[in-house]
Amino acid sequence: MKRYIGVDLGGTNIKAALVDDGHQILIEKSKPTLLPRPAGDVCADIVAVVRDILSQAGLTAGDICGGGIGCPGMVDGKRGVVSYSNNLAWRDIDLAPTLAHAIGCPFYLENDANAAALGEARAGSAKGAESAVIVTLGTGVGVGIVIGGRLHTGYSGTASEFGHMVIVRGGKRCTCGREGCLESYASATGLIRMTWEAMGENPNSRLWAIAPSRGEVNGRTAFEGARLGDETARRVVALYIDYLACGAANIINALQPEILSLGGGIAKEGEALLQPLREKVYAEVFGGRGQRHTLIKQCTLGYRAGLIGAAILAEDNADAS
Amino acid sequence: MKRYIGVDLGGTNIKAALVDDGHQILIEKSKPTLLPRPAGDVCADIVAVVRDILSQAGLTAGDICGGGIGCPGMVDGKRGVVSYSNNLAWRDIDLAPTLAHAIGCPFYLENDANAAALGEARAGSAKGAESAVIVTLGTGVGVGIVIGGRLHTGYSGTASEFGHMVIVRGGKRCTCGREGCLESYASATGLIRMTWEAMGENPNSRLWAIAPSRGEVNGRTAFEGARLGDETARRVVALYIDYLACGAANIINALQPEILSLGGGIAKEGEALLQPLREKVYAEVFGGRGQRHTLIKQCTLGYRAGLIGAAILAEDNADAS
Repeated sequence: MKRYIGVDLGGTNIKAALVDDGHQILIEKSKPTLLPRPAGDVCADIVAVVRDILSQAGLTAGDICGGGIGCPGMVDGKRGVVSYSNNLAWRDIDLAPTLAHAIGCPFYLENDANAAALGEARAGSAKGAESAVIVTLGTGVGVGIVIGGRLHTGYSGTASEFGHMVIVRGGKRCTCGREGCLESYASATGLIRMTWEAMGENPNSRLWAIAPSRGEVNGRTAFEGARLGDETARRVVALYIDYLACGAANIINALQPEILSLGGGIAKEGEALLQPLREKVYAEVFGGRGQRHTLIKQCTLGYRAGLIGAAILAEDNADAS
Repeated sequence: MKRYIGVDLGGTNIKAALVDDGHQILIEKSKPTLLPRPAGDVCADIVAVVRDILSQAGLTAGDICGGGIGCPGMVDGKRGVVSYSNNLAWRDIDLAPTLAHAIGCPFYLENDANAAALGEARAGSAKGAESAVIVTLGTGVGVGIVIGGRLHTGYSGTASEFGHMVIVRGGKRCTCGREGCLESYASATGLIRMTWEAMGENPNSRLWAIAPSRGEVNGRTAFEGARLGDETARRVVALYIDYLACGAANIINALQPEILSLGGGIAKEGEALLQPLREKVYAEVFGGRGQRHTLIKQCTLGYRAGLIGAAILAEDNADAS
């Protein structure tokens, strides 16, 4: 059995796991990231968590085939350098070489969303598929493209930004500067905005009982209201799914992946989201008689996708070298 | 020197060429397609054109490493079958096996737009690039994706339909049934519509001198008017480029290809189109400091892209087998 280390470096926690070649997590540990602090200190804690795991497993670095780490921001995977991370307030940090040296095994770096997409595609909801697009509906809309088992990161290394695909030309201003991006409508942030706007226009909606103030409105509020039969909530959910379907149909027309999986907070609504979404998407996508259609699924690995995906990075690189 | 046959089967003409392993066309011939007529008759004429080329070259089928053919419509490349072609009025025609049998060398099939994209990416404007997206601005908006030298055709075999990506939710109805597709705005058809609409609103525009009736408006009209300094024409061109930039930025954010090349009639405007397009796209795309950006270029092979791309299909399949 070959074993790998997978690390998911987030703004809140450093998570790490020992992962086997069947993509199962054997041991998992974490430490708070404690930002803001210097990159060197964060690296030292990553090393400490990894050593802790190895020690518990009764292993040394020599028993490990390699490690991978997912990190928020723009990364240069070839050099193992974090080019820029707004989240960590890092610029040009040679993260992978530092970890490789300190831990004593090869280390590989990828953007955290891409690492999670790789995990979900290879070991989760799209396991065995020839191609998959993983769409995470959180604060933003993160997308990872996996074709033939490999991440498509493009010429710049930062591809798959379908969240910043304009679907409403001249629409809501997005954080990226464009107007009408999918992210402005299909993120949890977009859903919260739409929910609050609808509440403003409908003072008798039961949504007010679920979330009496702006700060209490979240990505679940409208779905909860819809389950209670509230008409305003139902309209918000239908509108949200409409925007998401528009983006999903665009992605499918462009790439025709075997599987499109939805993750993130809003995807936890499960079939309440997926069933109407599929109806809308299949009515819109390009194609014809006898054509094989993209399956639309829910992600299954949750936060573990990032750990397993980081380990898969190490596995693929070890196989290639 | 290895030699291949490339065929581009269109609604108007059957074109075929003898192509060498440096992707140069050695001999080229054509015959009218003469639709509507049975698939068998069209196949017989394809075989006749190919034999004519071989005879002129003093070669036999045994001297050829293989042939490729691009055909409009939905194709099943693996089986070599044209699943459905509206253009040819064909359904389930086993085109590649028929040609292979009649000509006496292996034959491979791809959608015509994809074959042309493969040619342009490998032997034209994107030669040597790690990845390219070829966008053809004609009656519709055709797109081909080439990653690592190979077409990305997706799970269904019909991917890369970025022309049917909604950029104006609730906008103009597209032939595909969706509303607000890129194709409705960035095709020659879309530009002609916008030109005619602007003429209706501006009876004093010089566009009326260029095209006195609806039937005389074409994809060049607005660009011609803009060159003459007509304000209405300038606004039409700016609006057209705005829509195209929106779509191009969406494609670049999604795939970050090394090169995005524009072909088709409207791309013949050259820098009058490309220079303002680049300005708008680079202002919109996601990315940051030091990032490598997608180059936006004009296609260079014209109709020959389809012939050379079809030959490359044969070359790649011969190499693989």
